[in-house]
Amino acid sequence: MIIILKKGTPEIEINRTIQEITTTLPVKAEKVVGRHQVIIGMIGETSSLDPLLIQEVSPWIEQVLRVEKPFKRASREYRYGQESEVIVSTPNGDVKFGEAHPVVLIAGPCSVESEEMIVETAKRVKAAGAKFLRGGAYKPRTSPYSFQGHGESALGMLWAAREATGLGIITEVMDSTDVERVADVADILQVGARNMQNFSLLKKVGAQNKPVLLKRGISATINDWLMAAEYILVSGNPNVILCERGIRTFDRQYTRNTLDLSAVPVLRSLTHLPIMVDPSHGTGKSSFVPVMAKAAIAVGADSLMIEVHPNPAQALSDGPQSLTLEQFDRLSHELEGMCQVVDRVQPTLAILA
Amino acid sequence: MIIILKKGTPEIEINRTIQEITTTLPVKAEKVVGRHQVIIGMIGETSSLDPLLIQEVSPWIEQVLRVEKPFKRASREYRYGQESEVIVSTPNGDVKFGEAHPVVLIAGPCSVESEEMIVETAKRVKAAGAKFLRGGAYKPRTSPYSFQGHGESALGMLWAAREATGLGIITEVMDSTDVERVADVADILQVGARNMQNFSLLKKVGAQNKPVLLKRGISATINDWLMAAEYILVSGNPNVILCERGIRTFDRQYTRNTLDLSAVPVLRSLTHLPIMVDPSHGTGKSSFVPVMAKAAIAVGADSLMIEVHPNPAQALSDGPQSLTLEQFDRLSHELEGMCQVVDRVQPTLAILA
Amino acid sequence: MIIILKKGTPEIEINRTIQEITTTLPVKAEKVVGRHQVIIGMIGETSSLDPLLIQEVSPWIEQVLRVEKPFKRASREYRYGQESEVIVSTPNGDVKFGEAHPVVLIAGPCSVESEEMIVETAKRVKAAGAKFLRGGAYKPRTSPYSFQGHGESALGMLWAAREATGLGIITEVMDSTDVERVADVADILQVGARNMQNFSLLKKVGAQNKPVLLKRGISATINDWLMAAEYILVSGNPNVILCERGIRTFDRQYTRNTLDLSAVPVLRSLTHLPIMVDPSHGTGKSSFVPVMAKAAIAVGADSLMIEVHPNPAQALSDGPQSLTLEQFDRLSHELEGMCQVVDRVQPTLAILA
Amino acid sequence: MIIILKKGTPEIEINRTIQEITTTLPVKAEKVVGRHQVIIGMIGETSSLDPLLIQEVSPWIEQVLRVEKPFKRASREYRYGQESEVIVSTPNGDVKFGEAHPVVLIAGPCSVESEEMIVETAKRVKAAGAKFLRGGAYKPRTSPYSFQGHGESALGMLWAAREATGLGIITEVMDSTDVERVADVADILQVGARNMQNFSLLKKVGAQNKPVLLKRGISATINDWLMAAEYILVSGNPNVILCERGIRTFDRQYTRNTLDLSAVPVLRSLTHLPIMVDPSHGTGKSSFVPVMAKAAIAVGADSLMIEVHPNPAQALSDGPQSLTLEQFDRLSHELEGMCQVVDRVQPTLAILA
Repeated sequence: MIIILKKGTPEIEINRTIQEITTTLPVKAEKVVGRHQVIIGMIGETSSLDPLLIQEVSPWIEQVLRVEKPFKRASREYRYGQESEVIVSTPNGDVKFGEAHPVVLIAGPCSVESEEMIVETAKRVKAAGAKFLRGGAYKPRTSPYSFQGHGESALGMLWAAREATGLGIITEVMDSTDVERVADVADILQVGARNMQNFSLLKKVGAQNKPVLLKRGISATINDWLMAAEYILVSGNPNVILCERGIRTFDRQYTRNTLDLSAVPVLRSLTHLPIMVDPSHGTGKSSFVPVMAKAAIAVGADSLMIEVHPNPAQALSDGPQSLTLEQFDRLSHELEGMCQVVDRVQPTLAILA
Repeated sequence: MIIILKKGTPEIEINRTIQEITTTLPVKAEKVVGRHQVIIGMIGETSSLDPLLIQEVSPWIEQVLRVEKPFKRASREYRYGQESEVIVSTPNGDVKFGEAHPVVLIAGPCSVESEEMIVETAKRVKAAGAKFLRGGAYKPRTSPYSFQGHGESALGMLWAAREATGLGIITEVMDSTDVERVADVADILQVGARNMQNFSLLKKVGAQNKPVLLKRGISATINDWLMAAEYILVSGNPNVILCERGIRTFDRQYTRNTLDLSAVPVLRSLTHLPIMVDPSHGTGKSSFVPVMAKAAIAVGADSLMIEVHPNPAQALSDGPQSLTLEQFDRLSHELEGMCQVVDRVQPTLAILA
Repeated sequence: MIIILKKGTPEIEINRTIQEITTTLPVKAEKVVGRHQVIIGMIGETSSLDPLLIQEVSPWIEQVLRVEKPFKRASREYRYGQESEVIVSTPNGDVKFGEAHPVVLIAGPCSVESEEMIVETAKRVKAAGAKFLRGGAYKPRTSPYSFQGHGESALGMLWAAREATGLGIITEVMDSTDVERVADVADILQVGARNMQNFSLLKKVGAQNKPVLLKRGISATINDWLMAAEYILVSGNPNVILCERGIRTFDRQYTRNTLDLSAVPVLRSLTHLPIMVDPSHGTGKSSFVPVMAKAAIAVGADSLMIEVHPNPAQALSDGPQSLTLEQFDRLSHELEGMCQVVDRVQPTLAILA
Repeated sequence: MIIILKKGTPEIEINRTIQEITTTLPVKAEKVVGRHQVIIGMIGETSSLDPLLIQEVSPWIEQVLRVEKPFKRASREYRYGQESEVIVSTPNGDVKFGEAHPVVLIAGPCSVESEEMIVETAKRVKAAGAKFLRGGAYKPRTSPYSFQGHGESALGMLWAAREATGLGIITEVMDSTDVERVADVADILQVGARNMQNFSLLKKVGAQNKPVLLKRGISATINDWLMAAEYILVSGNPNVILCERGIRTFDRQYTRNTLDLSAVPVLRSLTHLPIMVDPSHGTGKSSFVPVMAKAAIAVGADSLMIEVHPNPAQALSDGPQSLTLEQFDRLSHELEGMCQVVDRVQPTLAILA
């Protein structure tokens, strides 16, 4: 349930209203500051509450509305239609994710293989316009006989790459016992597709203060996914970015997954959270990545995550879907035109042009 | 199997080679003229043939290669990597579909409802840059109680719209007994998703001389689809356009189908045939059509088919996915920027800008 | 909408009621004789009708109920909960399909390959308890280069097998122009999975008087499927049998399709029509056919269709999923125990025991 | 890779061979005792090993074979075709899961709601023939606003039910930090569908000594699933039971999931591990559970897990798919006939007859 306040409601009255609501009703209440309105969001046993009675709490209340969706804090209704943004501070400065901001590029290898390779990759993708370095320390692999990531030592290598370039770091956390260790290094914690409904992990990343990148489960419906985001939000962490990375369908001969680009406008209509697209996992083949990356921008994605490796043929994991450093350079330049058409140019990209 | 001829092979030698091959081997052979080479394509019992022996047929033979894919004439290998084009003559002149040509826009209502509405729609979509009018005379409907199309009388209305605007006509044929009747009016015959494996119909449209638009079946793999195209090609009709229109997946709550945009680059790598995308059926919701249309161009589609209706709320079928005439106007202008980025501008669109 | 008549309603009053309804209301009406009640079914523009006003047509009317499902004649509600039966007359006598009858076995090869093989197979499957011979004359094949069936000459071979054994014949019709030719030979016309939404064909088989076996489309929902049956029913043919034959899912490595056995109880709750299961196409592997056949009986199927070939390794189509004649013999005996547990023994099977 | 030893190989020679292999080759080796042979299984870098050289290690070696499947310890080849069994000791004695044993019934509520309800349910399902009580303490729920289980206090209630009835306990563990706590109470640890690829959890349950029930992920291929089992097996725990519980497909209108019964014979051909079926989650509707339970036995399942609740209408979770205690009584009796047909009767069930 949300309360929309009249324009110009004094701060003291907002606080009094929140105070009265939380002490008299079985709900938690929080202030949500939009571009045009201040809203009070209420989560809890709202189904039995009468909007008309709540309206009497303050003469500054304009309207009281129910959030009809099963996801509440994640829904666009909860912010009365306004998008949110996730601001991440990196050594190079704040990076903003959201539909009012330029498209953010994230690049890097599937796995962190050595300090040398990750630092080299970081420098090159930074030069090409990326704002974040991705790289797996802990790798979820279908087979126990596949490379499982270098673990804790890889976290150190990521830190070295961060120091060397100032790029933000995104890396996956797979186990609730690793959350703190990963959060010491990562600027954004990634929850992978296979763990999208690992609710213990969701609660744990929701209880720490680094932003969370939540990948879509391989057969998660849009509702499943937003409910997973809701787990993080209700645990106290408002900074969630959603990442589409392909779904499992009946045809898996030519692509690893089916990249569901219509998820982007669907999410836009349902949620205020920023949206990322990963065309590398989405297709599983490097030759399809560039056009799908362009299409992701065309369709409105706020950010792209792209796998890049200095030598894909020798990669310890996901080589076939990794671009070379040169291919990423070229793609990054090509994406500029696309960003211009949709009016979401990265200032730094523009400079490169 | 294909024979690649040396540059400058005399016409008489090409014909002699084809003649010798068809009289001595259990295959049909045909000349395929590419941009750089002339190729002789062979279809039939090729598995037992020895490429080296075939090579001896003429000193002008450069190479003899097997087509490894299960689809032969539809495969890109069959044209030694070169795309094909489908040229359709309309009252307004030839329209060319293919990756070397501008993006072709097709628009119109799901069903032809009256002469007035179809002529009005035709005029408006022509003004906005469309080259073809779509409109259903025979409608495949899940329920026998739903509107089944006006049938033969609707064909007359389409003819009137063609006369009034010079636009080419695309309309669906559902029954092999209707092929000639529909081909009298249509410039392109559409085979719908539900009939993609109606092999009797495929053979029939393959045996007449109008181009065929082959929509992807709702759960057709890429291979199934190209094999369906192969049915048309081997029946003698070389003019086939493939149309992606969404596949069926596990999540059907917010979109009618899942538009599989990665099918475009996948097809590009596998086949020489032109590729169209239908974002209207692909999403089922008009609000998602514009961004998905842009993404389709970004991903390399040669043509777009978009449902447009003067009054979607009153449409006899598929209202929720139809744009209004005004929305199509706007979209058409927006698509220009996208066409420019991918360097595939319609000259007439450019004029409108 | 249905009218439930009181017990003992005189025939003359039933007829008068039907007469009055069809002349005064925008509907067609028909008498449906159930085990306990006589019902009048109404199809047409019923949404605007007032049940209370209809009730006044006759004092013998007990109740007037709406059919809430989108499928009307196919729904169980339309018969006020009572199952229907399909009775097929064969040279060996009537065979009844339906939940009150023994399980009916159908067997035979994918394709009719020669008169000798089809007659031999017919004799053997008859001896093992089958009531019908299946065999394809016209074959829908994914590839135009695969064996397409012997066509009309195969119909003659099926007739010879029918003459030799007295078994009923089930064979597929793929084209609306072939319906009469096939119906001359077949006791049941099969509409295959790929044609489940070939509405022209559905209308055509609905307009002739042989029973129709309607296979489920490879990605047809239960609703799609019952709506396809509705097309046949509203075209005038009340004798429709539904056949589950596997659906397309994300995992196709070990089975050709995923046999959806829960479709059987789901259909039982929704429709009065008899239900068949085809474990051969459902699995695509002969080694999985026997257990899935048993499970189909356990789950309540009214009939089984099983592919049997004298020499599967040499079959022109679908060899990997065909049982040998000996394997079918053995399976048939094993199925008896299963039929006994669910209390649906074939008298002739019992004799064989 | 496996080494098949000749019959009568002395124990001392087996040990010597294992000793020599593990000290000279880059593999781990273990003895696998089959019904007819003793096998030495080898896991590790076997791809570069030469079977002929290994053969020379001992004259008692009959044959050295590669395991071709990506899963090694889980594969049937690893035991040279012989099934394994999982023996669980419960207060009422050992219960054996496996294809050579009677069908094992497991029943109980989705969630443990109170000590009274769980003890009552345990007594009733025991009387009806169940060997294990299921009940959730930690519940994975799509929504953070749904009942999440009573957690640790529910473990105490399960213990009380175990004390009162002697039934074994099966309950889910969702977080690697809870494994020990849950293992203190549970006789079998359940890893749920959503955590099937939570590899941290798989390694953790693989490193303790209670048997593990591994449910199939909602869109896991058979290979994905067996690779997940492999994680547990290579972590040292040989006691894994696989549970099919329905997969996600395009049709979700009438059933919650699609129960993939052909997975049972497919698994039988690929793995030696025992197989369970859960028709409650598989269908999501109690009215479909009984026939699907029968079909699961017909198809060869070694065990059934069925949700039972004293008052499904009031259940805190999964009420619609729960049988009442009376319905479970009835079903249990009906299942006996099915067990007899497949010759896998529970002795105690027979007594009840």
